[in-house]
Amino acid sequence: MNNHEELIKQWLKDNRARGTRFLQILVQENSTRGNESSAQAVIIEKCRQLGLNLDIWEIDRDELKEHEAFCCDRQGFEGNPNVVAVLKGTGGGKSIILNGHIDVVPVGDEKNWEHDPFSGHIECGKLYGRGSTDMKGGTAALIMAVEAIIATGIKLKGDIIFQSVIEEESGGAGTLAAVLRGYQADGAIIPEPTGMKIFPKQQGSMWFRINVKGRAAHGGTRYEGISAIEKAVLVIQKLQQLEKNRNIKITDPLFNSIPIPIPINIGKINSGEWPSSVPDLAVIEGRMGVSPEETISAARGEMAAVLDELNQQDDWFQENPLGIEWFGGRWLPGNLEVDHPLMKTLSESFVEIKGEKPVIEASPWGTDGGILSNVGNTPVVVFGPGITATAHDANEHILLEDLFAASKIIALTLLKWCEVSE
Amino acid sequence: MNNHEELIKQWLKDNRARGTRFLQILVQENSTRGNESSAQAVIIEKCRQLGLNLDIWEIDRDELKEHEAFCCDRQGFEGNPNVVAVLKGTGGGKSIILNGHIDVVPVGDEKNWEHDPFSGHIECGKLYGRGSTDMKGGTAALIMAVEAIIATGIKLKGDIIFQSVIEEESGGAGTLAAVLRGYQADGAIIPEPTGMKIFPKQQGSMWFRINVKGRAAHGGTRYEGISAIEKAVLVIQKLQQLEKNRNIKITDPLFNSIPIPIPINIGKINSGEWPSSVPDLAVIEGRMGVSPEETISAARGEMAAVLDELNQQDDWFQENPLGIEWFGGRWLPGNLEVDHPLMKTLSESFVEIKGEKPVIEASPWGTDGGILSNVGNTPVVVFGPGITATAHDANEHILLEDLFAASKIIALTLLKWCEVSE
Repeated sequence: MNNHEELIKQWLKDNRARGTRFLQILVQENSTRGNESSAQAVIIEKCRQLGLNLDIWEIDRDELKEHEAFCCDRQGFEGNPNVVAVLKGTGGGKSIILNGHIDVVPVGDEKNWEHDPFSGHIECGKLYGRGSTDMKGGTAALIMAVEAIIATGIKLKGDIIFQSVIEEESGGAGTLAAVLRGYQADGAIIPEPTGMKIFPKQQGSMWFRINVKGRAAHGGTRYEGISAIEKAVLVIQKLQQLEKNRNIKITDPLFNSIPIPIPINIGKINSGEWPSSVPDLAVIEGRMGVSPEETISAARGEMAAVLDELNQQDDWFQENPLGIEWFGGRWLPGNLEVDHPLMKTLSESFVEIKGEKPVIEASPWGTDGGILSNVGNTPVVVFGPGITATAHDANEHILLEDLFAASKIIALTLLKWCEVSE
Repeated sequence: MNNHEELIKQWLKDNRARGTRFLQILVQENSTRGNESSAQAVIIEKCRQLGLNLDIWEIDRDELKEHEAFCCDRQGFEGNPNVVAVLKGTGGGKSIILNGHIDVVPVGDEKNWEHDPFSGHIECGKLYGRGSTDMKGGTAALIMAVEAIIATGIKLKGDIIFQSVIEEESGGAGTLAAVLRGYQADGAIIPEPTGMKIFPKQQGSMWFRINVKGRAAHGGTRYEGISAIEKAVLVIQKLQQLEKNRNIKITDPLFNSIPIPIPINIGKINSGEWPSSVPDLAVIEGRMGVSPEETISAARGEMAAVLDELNQQDDWFQENPLGIEWFGGRWLPGNLEVDHPLMKTLSESFVEIKGEKPVIEASPWGTDGGILSNVGNTPVVVFGPGITATAHDANEHILLEDLFAASKIIALTLLKWCEVSE
């Protein structure tokens, strides 16, 4: 066995430039929502070269829409396929899903980026660009691990099911489609940007939209109107209080080092059309974290309760109650036992490569792991090389050293989990 | 003289339906910014029928742009002309400008309107629609007054210079263009929606834009970012405090019944692109009122000072200072003596028609009067039939009774001010 591990480690050491170049090409293809096709083409071409069994299909909204885990406001998937590529095992070993999402979030204010957001610029051991960390770096680590096994001629007993899915950033319709297409396994690794931490538990999350009404008036007699912006400030303050109250209750030690275990992020506000009019509508959009121990509906209930409270406390809201809408993205929480065999195998491989124990925590954000585990009955660990802090940020980047280490750790895990066929 | 007045009053009484219909047609033409042409066509056709000397021209940005009172972010004026129509006097009397703006503000959230915003719907003596009050109703009162004089065969000594201008809601480029084209007079009436009050002083105002920076991050680790929305709340609170401090200092009795003499209206906020990202930029836009006794630059200085204060107080703003931009609309304040002859003439006519003394106040909003008086050296009174509270609001409407009364008061004022040529 040691021989196989050494072969793999050596190949990965010798092929760093190859892995780096692959990630660079992947980052250079802008794959924001609705534009995933060209990055998927890079994935498909690579899988074809590796001789994997490819399954490429466009999501059929009609097939998925009745499923209770389906949560997606996108109408068309034409031209932007899901990709699954299987390395069939010789039989008898445990199977594994390696799941990465190809979609990336928008770039934000481009002025905050030092380089073009899709440059793939490399400097001081870091590769920059939208998606480099979240999570094309993770996907590159998966591909390198699989390529190492194939290139060294090692045969495994269990199947490796590599998935490059769309829609993770918007509610997981891509992974749901893969699960409903029949892809399940004895375990799964999702290399989201954990900064090399291992996350057996994953925070769930969901998006909300709150409509805050005002009454329009001329700005010069603004006292004759009701500013939707001023009213929205009350809502923001209430949400901040709710976030505080919910997080005080989180006592799981896996959350110990996370400042806000289940955040309520206010991601958007839009109000007003004209500087000198009192705005009559403010729309707040955000993301509410869901604890691994709670249900989606319990979390929604807490949000509804504080908005009801505000509706009671404020004269204007009594007449013009706040409405909440749960739309777009929703990620089910995940909750794997810390001593699950997959956790043990991954942790051992981590120690072998890094020479130290891994940090085991709860993930501060939702992933497609909730769908894989809850709908697909597949035990999921989230572990990857990207840097949490730079995900969704300007100047997103990844440390290439972490990428190389992660690919080794994942490759060793594959050898042990799927078992080498001698 | 009494005979002329009786003739005028009788004609206006007999032609109420005619005036109502004219206003209705005018309201039915959507004349939001950039779309003023079809409403101006209605005005032009009417002035042509009345035999007025028409001057129709498109504003030439290049001619105006160097003027210090020019304040306009609109590039093209093609197809949306300014209109001036003169009823030449026989000579020897005082001239008067009757100024109305044809542009209307956007309709806001259409769901808040009971009828189509451009319906011109009439019910219970009220005519509804965007612009009915601000200020096509005022313009209709002017036209009715002029038509009454012409229809009754009365000749005046002084010139009546009727103006239907664009761009009032965005900084007054239309009136500035008319002034620079040479239109000046011994007095001016602007029938903005004062609710039949007489405003010798006008609040100035100007638009501002404040950029509030944040630092993007994934919403699940929002503590790693800085929310531009949370930071924007601090700015909003600071502006609310500034408004309070500025208004405490206003002691002019003309402002006695105005809850906030010089408001700071926060009309717009836009921040964020994605519910589960920490937003890295919030843009606040609004309108700052300027007291008739202060200069534009003094008011700007007060705003700059409080933002500087915030830049000092807050660690994040120390590194990422707030920037302010004065853009778009700017209306100079106006300040006519309460005992100016035009005030006396208008007040007398008011008493004759209404049988009571007019309410004399300071206008709670800027008008083109600032340009007419400061640049055009023309004494300005603002007085009109529209209802301040419904201007810029959903279900904007005007009381037709007020429209008829205003047209009589203005017509009598014309007889006295311009003098009847026997």
